[in-house]
Amino acid sequence: MKFEEFEEVTVKRETLFSGQIIELAVDDVRLPNGELAKRELVFHNGAVGIIAITADERIVLVKQFRKPLEKVILEIPAGKIDDTDGNTLETAQRELEEETGFQGNNWEFVIEFSSAPGFTNEILYIYQATGLKKVDNPLPQDEDELIELHYLTLAEAKAAIASGEIYDGKTILAIQYWELMQLRGK
Amino acid sequence: MKFEEFEEVTVKRETLFSGQIIELAVDDVRLPNGELAKRELVFHNGAVGIIAITADERIVLVKQFRKPLEKVILEIPAGKIDDTDGNTLETAQRELEEETGFQGNNWEFVIEFSSAPGFTNEILYIYQATGLKKVDNPLPQDEDELIELHYLTLAEAKAAIASGEIYDGKTILAIQYWELMQLRGK
Repeated sequence: MKFEEFEEVTVKRETLFSGQIIELAVDDVRLPNGELAKRELVFHNGAVGIIAITADERIVLVKQFRKPLEKVILEIPAGKIDDTDGNTLETAQRELEEETGFQGNNWEFVIEFSSAPGFTNEILYIYQATGLKKVDNPLPQDEDELIELHYLTLAEAKAAIASGEIYDGKTILAIQYWELMQLRGK
Repeated sequence: MKFEEFEEVTVKRETLFSGQIIELAVDDVRLPNGELAKRELVFHNGAVGIIAITADERIVLVKQFRKPLEKVILEIPAGKIDDTDGNTLETAQRELEEETGFQGNNWEFVIEFSSAPGFTNEILYIYQATGLKKVDNPLPQDEDELIELHYLTLAEAKAAIASGEIYDGKTILAIQYWELMQLRGK
């Protein structure tokens, strides 16, 4: 089937909330069969995540509290795209430095994906950074972010997935990607 | 550091929207340093996703329109957890049958993870199903879901990731998991 046979056309949009991070809207849509339905939509500016690998083959992770989960988890460094950012690589370089104090010599785009296509347009842009070095005076962390750095081998990262300490999609995807690169001998 | 040193305690919660799929709240939280901050939170009941592999080593994917992205994408079969569901395996078995008409003989829990821990509590529970057979009178699809079935080899699925036709985190994670299983000879 073609795009037109799937498309749900917005008949009416009601924006119910505009916050710092997200915007909420409810659409009335017309389905391909002519019926009407509601769609609850969370708009987000998108974010970056960084697979940062040290010279001794450890991945740089940040430990932080995540209010929606009421949990402390280990994640790859990540951050929201600002409207003033030129491109997602620039965002990734800034976020890596802000969250970890590292700059990377080599940057490679890995993949982009939708985090939860059922209700949000948030897209994640994942980069890999190597050739890491600590900056003397790194960009300051966001004031309301408390972060602890961890450096895990692949075996330790896989154990952290198994224990639930690593618990979010982008970080699990990143560890799997790292393992696939190693198995392929890259 | 310990959990208490990271925790953000809710001082006040304002629920701004309660829909069919999501609920939106804004919390005033007290940070570990004593300062106050806002947290925008999207509550979701959680969902399941199914890695369904046919006897000839193809993954069963569903093509559907995703309003938040305004795109048609290929995903693993998935669906929301109902309040009446006994457990996530039951949800997974129902969703596979509803969306694809398949029942699976062998079910295995793969992983659970948070889709977007920055703003939502949505958890995804991923199962693998094999020993697939088409049911004569499958559970009916949701009325407002239009779905087309696709059966991809691993090589085709990787090409679909590269082209952007597969574009969501859970499905990319599922394909990587499938590839890792094959490389490990399982």
